Amino acid sequence: MTAAADPAPAPLSLGRRALVEGLGAATLAAVVIGSGVMATRLSDDVGVQLLMNAIATVFALFVLIAALGGLSGAHLNPAVTLVMLALRRTGPVDAAVYIPAQVAGCLAGAALANLMFGLPVVAISTTDRAEPATLLAEVVATAGLIAVILLLARQGRDALIAPAVAAYIGAAYFFTSSTSFANPAITIGRIASDTFAGIAPASAGPFIVAQLVGAAIAVGVALALAPRAAMARATTAAPPAEAARA
Amino acid sequence: MTAAADPAPAPLSLGRRALVEGLGAATLAAVVIGSGVMATRLSDDVGVQLLMNAIATVFALFVLIAALGGLSGAHLNPAVTLVMLALRRTGPVDAAVYIPAQVAGCLAGAALANLMFGLPVVAISTTDRAEPATLLAEVVATAGLIAVILLLARQGRDALIAPAVAAYIGAAYFFTSSTSFANPAITIGRIASDTFAGIAPASAGPFIVAQLVGAAIAVGVALALAPRAAMARATTAAPPAEAARA
Amino acid sequence: MTAAADPAPAPLSLGRRALVEGLGAATLAAVVIGSGVMATRLSDDVGVQLLMNAIATVFALFVLIAALGGLSGAHLNPAVTLVMLALRRTGPVDAAVYIPAQVAGCLAGAALANLMFGLPVVAISTTDRAEPATLLAEVVATAGLIAVILLLARQGRDALIAPAVAAYIGAAYFFTSSTSFANPAITIGRIASDTFAGIAPASAGPFIVAQLVGAAIAVGVALALAPRAAMARATTAAPPAEAARA
Amino acid sequence: MTAAADPAPAPLSLGRRALVEGLGAATLAAVVIGSGVMATRLSDDVGVQLLMNAIATVFALFVLIAALGGLSGAHLNPAVTLVMLALRRTGPVDAAVYIPAQVAGCLAGAALANLMFGLPVVAISTTDRAEPATLLAEVVATAGLIAVILLLARQGRDALIAPAVAAYIGAAYFFTSSTSFANPAITIGRIASDTFAGIAPASAGPFIVAQLVGAAIAVGVALALAPRAAMARATTAAPPAEAARA
Repeated sequence: MTAAADPAPAPLSLGRRALVEGLGAATLAAVVIGSGVMATRLSDDVGVQLLMNAIATVFALFVLIAALGGLSGAHLNPAVTLVMLALRRTGPVDAAVYIPAQVAGCLAGAALANLMFGLPVVAISTTDRAEPATLLAEVVATAGLIAVILLLARQGRDALIAPAVAAYIGAAYFFTSSTSFANPAITIGRIASDTFAGIAPASAGPFIVAQLVGAAIAVGVALALAPRAAMARATTAAPPAEAARA
Repeated sequence: MTAAADPAPAPLSLGRRALVEGLGAATLAAVVIGSGVMATRLSDDVGVQLLMNAIATVFALFVLIAALGGLSGAHLNPAVTLVMLALRRTGPVDAAVYIPAQVAGCLAGAALANLMFGLPVVAISTTDRAEPATLLAEVVATAGLIAVILLLARQGRDALIAPAVAAYIGAAYFFTSSTSFANPAITIGRIASDTFAGIAPASAGPFIVAQLVGAAIAVGVALALAPRAAMARATTAAPPAEAARA
Repeated sequence: MTAAADPAPAPLSLGRRALVEGLGAATLAAVVIGSGVMATRLSDDVGVQLLMNAIATVFALFVLIAALGGLSGAHLNPAVTLVMLALRRTGPVDAAVYIPAQVAGCLAGAALANLMFGLPVVAISTTDRAEPATLLAEVVATAGLIAVILLLARQGRDALIAPAVAAYIGAAYFFTSSTSFANPAITIGRIASDTFAGIAPASAGPFIVAQLVGAAIAVGVALALAPRAAMARATTAAPPAEAARA
Repeated sequence: MTAAADPAPAPLSLGRRALVEGLGAATLAAVVIGSGVMATRLSDDVGVQLLMNAIATVFALFVLIAALGGLSGAHLNPAVTLVMLALRRTGPVDAAVYIPAQVAGCLAGAALANLMFGLPVVAISTTDRAEPATLLAEVVATAGLIAVILLLARQGRDALIAPAVAAYIGAAYFFTSSTSFANPAITIGRIASDTFAGIAPASAGPFIVAQLVGAAIAVGVALALAPRAAMARATTAAPPAEAARA
């Protein structure tokens, strides 16, 4: 039923798509956290550290969306899944399966990063990050991310979503004071590593609220800028739509 | 009427397109200024600071032009709008609305960047930048930017404008002594932040004059190199033209 | 006979394709090792060193796969060739010629890098790298590399393989504690240079075993996520398949 | 006559194409030299300096080839022009006009860079660079550059030449001990600036000889790897060929 609701459904079963979301989210979390550990081990210049962390994330996002977009839609982010649910691009059953898969994946990815660097499998982060300025930053960061996805999808430019999302997060690492988490699942995963990219549990809740506020704002902005039927072309899975045009 | 003058008019109303220009310019200003604040907070190496500032700007320009080009043309820059007006690619009413939207957007983006980093909403910059060498640099920087846009548009290679403009500014950050403002609206926005990317009001005027001189030179160069009717294919909004060819 | 088994055979003889693999592998090894030498000569910040090493490798991988993919398939990596052999995308004779060409190429590339920097042609590395965490990292790094290639090929998105493999390795340099060798031939080549990118002989064996384990895991994952006949479209040589569709 | 010999002649007169080559070469030289000055003024870490220099050059090469390739072929390099002449892709009259335009452009670009940074218009470099290791590096660097261009052209993948050449030089900045000049006109231009990117006159001659040796080797390699008629599709001006296929 949810599959029938998708205009360009991926040919994979929901179980396989959830596995794709979980593995993709795990990889993303391992990249974000692992590159943060590498950065602090190799440099004392925090600017150089953030460059390493950001560049690794940009590259990973491009690869993950390019390789997995045609399989599961490559949401990798509960904020994206909830927006797609609100816009009826993803069904409620799919969303109810995707989001736990994303969260579980990010926790597994955090554990993997810890192991790859010889750290305890799980260590709760002690980095407090929530303050008014960083929460505003998370609103802005997530609003921008969702707006980029929706505006490109609305224009049928799905092939640009992989490089554009990667580039957007690359910019957001630097122009937001929070370094742009912009993803509730990654935020939860980052709790589990007491390293450069970690976040204390008490900060994670406010961050996630800010992210969801940002996502809601982005939906409003995108609908205001693109109020017409063309919006219906926005699809969960970019590459099938792209293939259909070819 | 202005819409009728556009060979490939965007389907959005002028009001919506102005909103797109304003939001896009605000995002660009927030990126330029915000990443500058982040850079000075994290590193003592000014080279690393400029790398962070430049990389964030490159990524943002690519995303903004890719996502907004099909909506408003993604000028985001009064120099671009004035050139399009001079070449009759944008009508006078559109230009009269776009430019204030760009300037207001950049001021809003500066305020947003200040807020995201816990700074006063507005703080007038005290960084003097105008001197003969940097003014020459702004002429060169803006001439190159406009030449890239016009030469690609003249050849019908609109899909390359987003990556090429981003890459051009990425180079210009480093090869011009001014770090390449190349945009009167961004120059005004930068007045409102007394941080790494700021510019003192007394320097802004000469910078803007230099930028407009550069833009005029670029129009001359592009017409000299591309004197024929093919030039007429240059369009305000790249993506619709691109879509029309598909 | 092997050529007949290839669904989209490159029009070059096996000898010429082996030469392409050898020259490509030599270039890749020269880039990896040479940029490591440059990095340690120019900077004392190990983070900056790894940025230089990684950026050079990313650029080289993109160029090599884009330029050589249509000639030999641009495996440049015995793990890739063995996976293609297991999936019957490459015949056993081709594989038996490709792998020695890749290893010989990487050794020649190491010698070339040494010579370009005024070092002895061959110097056995003394850098011990094998430990549980780095071996886990090599499993992960190689699994990700092979998964990216197989998933893109399975979806007929061969044109994305060059940028995606480059970007993947760019991320893996930072998020894996081993800095992601992910290639048995490069691992052997790195033995021959006692510099930043080198690896002691005693560590090379365990690294290669970990890489092959990772490759095997990736095949299992890709088959699990993509169990159907579409998989048969994965080809040794991406560009011819791409050209055939055009 | 030369125009008639071109399989996909650019529609511009030789005079206009020479102007394009000159302006393009001037821009390239200004980027290489200007970003070098910026780098040494902002950072004390030579690795960071080379990152700035290399990134600026990569971005500029991509933009210049993308924007000018359809106008003049965007050789911007006497080694490229001589190779195209040897392969009968460019006529002797065109070559005799292109090469002086490239050299004059690079000298003008050096002067512009000096002026933009408040330096004397011309200052002869005192940086000795010629030694056996760096000359070998120039042979390798130029051979790789020419091989990338010829192999992509031979396969009809002209649209990849702009990003591939940019990426190749980005790698070569780091993996060659000479930082990869790979261009006789740029080498001459660099004589005129006594800054980070400069080269003493006594070193320029040996560098240029090494570059031409590398170019000749690349022609041999490309013909060996691609011996057939398909080679005839290599064209002076990439984009027209690309446009013809569209």
